[in-house]
Amino acid sequence: MTASPIQDLSRLCVHTITTRPWPIEEITDRFAAAGVAGITVWRQALEGRNVARVGQNLRDAGLSIVSLCRGGFFPATDAQQRQRAVDDNFRAIDEAAELGAPLVVLVCGADPGQPLEQSRQQIVDGILAVHDRAVQANVRLGIEPLHPMYADTRSAINTMRQANDACDQINSPHVGVVVDVYHLWWDPDLKREIERCGRAGRLFAFHVCDWRSPTEDMLNDRGLMGEGCINVCEIRGWVEQAGFGHGFIEVEIFSDRYWKMDQGEFLAKIKEAYLSHT
Amino acid sequence: MTASPIQDLSRLCVHTITTRPWPIEEITDRFAAAGVAGITVWRQALEGRNVARVGQNLRDAGLSIVSLCRGGFFPATDAQQRQRAVDDNFRAIDEAAELGAPLVVLVCGADPGQPLEQSRQQIVDGILAVHDRAVQANVRLGIEPLHPMYADTRSAINTMRQANDACDQINSPHVGVVVDVYHLWWDPDLKREIERCGRAGRLFAFHVCDWRSPTEDMLNDRGLMGEGCINVCEIRGWVEQAGFGHGFIEVEIFSDRYWKMDQGEFLAKIKEAYLSHT
Repeated sequence: MTASPIQDLSRLCVHTITTRPWPIEEITDRFAAAGVAGITVWRQALEGRNVARVGQNLRDAGLSIVSLCRGGFFPATDAQQRQRAVDDNFRAIDEAAELGAPLVVLVCGADPGQPLEQSRQQIVDGILAVHDRAVQANVRLGIEPLHPMYADTRSAINTMRQANDACDQINSPHVGVVVDVYHLWWDPDLKREIERCGRAGRLFAFHVCDWRSPTEDMLNDRGLMGEGCINVCEIRGWVEQAGFGHGFIEVEIFSDRYWKMDQGEFLAKIKEAYLSHT
Repeated sequence: MTASPIQDLSRLCVHTITTRPWPIEEITDRFAAAGVAGITVWRQALEGRNVARVGQNLRDAGLSIVSLCRGGFFPATDAQQRQRAVDDNFRAIDEAAELGAPLVVLVCGADPGQPLEQSRQQIVDGILAVHDRAVQANVRLGIEPLHPMYADTRSAINTMRQANDACDQINSPHVGVVVDVYHLWWDPDLKREIERCGRAGRLFAFHVCDWRSPTEDMLNDRGLMGEGCINVCEIRGWVEQAGFGHGFIEVEIFSDRYWKMDQGEFLAKIKEAYLSHT
């Protein structure tokens, strides 16, 4: 089973990092002109800006603000470092509220100097430590499980099952999961755990791109949908079956290759890949 | 719980690819002189040699031949290609028998042009197709689950659970699992699935190295034990509890960094890391 074809751009969201060479002001104009419906803003794009004003400009341009990337990075062997992470997540929540983003995406973190179990516990502790601030700000927190190749430093939560388990432990309507096909496509439990996530009302966001063969860089060699081996359309079907039928489909691509291109041409390619291979 | 300290080199096996710059003849002398007890031979090391004679030389030098690397790579969209893979696995089994290796390690393969489920089925079909030859040759076949970052082209079997499930399906005393810490350390089910594997009598081999942070190359940047974040000693404890208390501990490192070193110095480092961090 695959999902029914995408007919228009009404659910297309693009991450600011996807077209990183453009500053946020140019992104605002370009995305709006291209008919992109939603935007996920990376915090780097906000540096030196008045966050509330950026948010207003995005809305004025007709863009829906889908989420802020990224909070997280909670684990550390050093307690002071963990406190700094909590403080930084407070700031991320405040920025999301100022911007008008309903969700902060969490790249949860890991510390190679301690066991994964300990990092996982510190992730749950960290989310609990910032939870009330998120509730007050009316901002949700989305745990994004990351590919196991990032388990050493980026996230000790590497499967949907682990993300669902963490959400069970935290048990708050403000804490859910961000599904990214790049991180999860290989997992034989993916369909079942997406269903579980949907039943719990915790499927907060859906990110797409593709896995190139060969992948030449562990971080910055993601492909456009259709360029690799991920069953993007099938996974979209699972996500939609799980209750996300009207949610944004977010194109998040880190690619040295594409960042070198003319970003206007790249944006045209994104739209094409979105309509034909997602 | 971690395993009890390693006291001597009696269970140390080193893969020929670990010291790849040396030809098999030099490896034979060097490993024996260094007190290495076992050797796993990669097929590349046998090119242009009389395989039976290499085996005899290894035994004469006092080395135990632990396994032959590698068979597998069964999946392909093209049926002729799948048949060629079966034929190549026949040859690998024959070579193992000639060499005197009791085990062929299977890197099972994957084809990015088809769904993972299909690749997984073709892996089981491929193993079944070569199974009788392995029984006749008295050679066992070890499924090595590979890290999910290799799911596109190297193996559609990426966890111990999947390897155990495949073994259940095949259900032969000649087919088991090769546990490699590099591929599996991140998996929250690892301990339980190692126990399951041991209970079924299917834990055939144990490979060690470490995961460096940052890892700079997806293939050839493995670390020596102790150099990275893998809980090698703890995993060894699980493997030994699962009935592998007398099995070889195989050092399998692909590293551009170490291949550039003087291989004699590297071998000394391997022994040190084996005794102190395994």
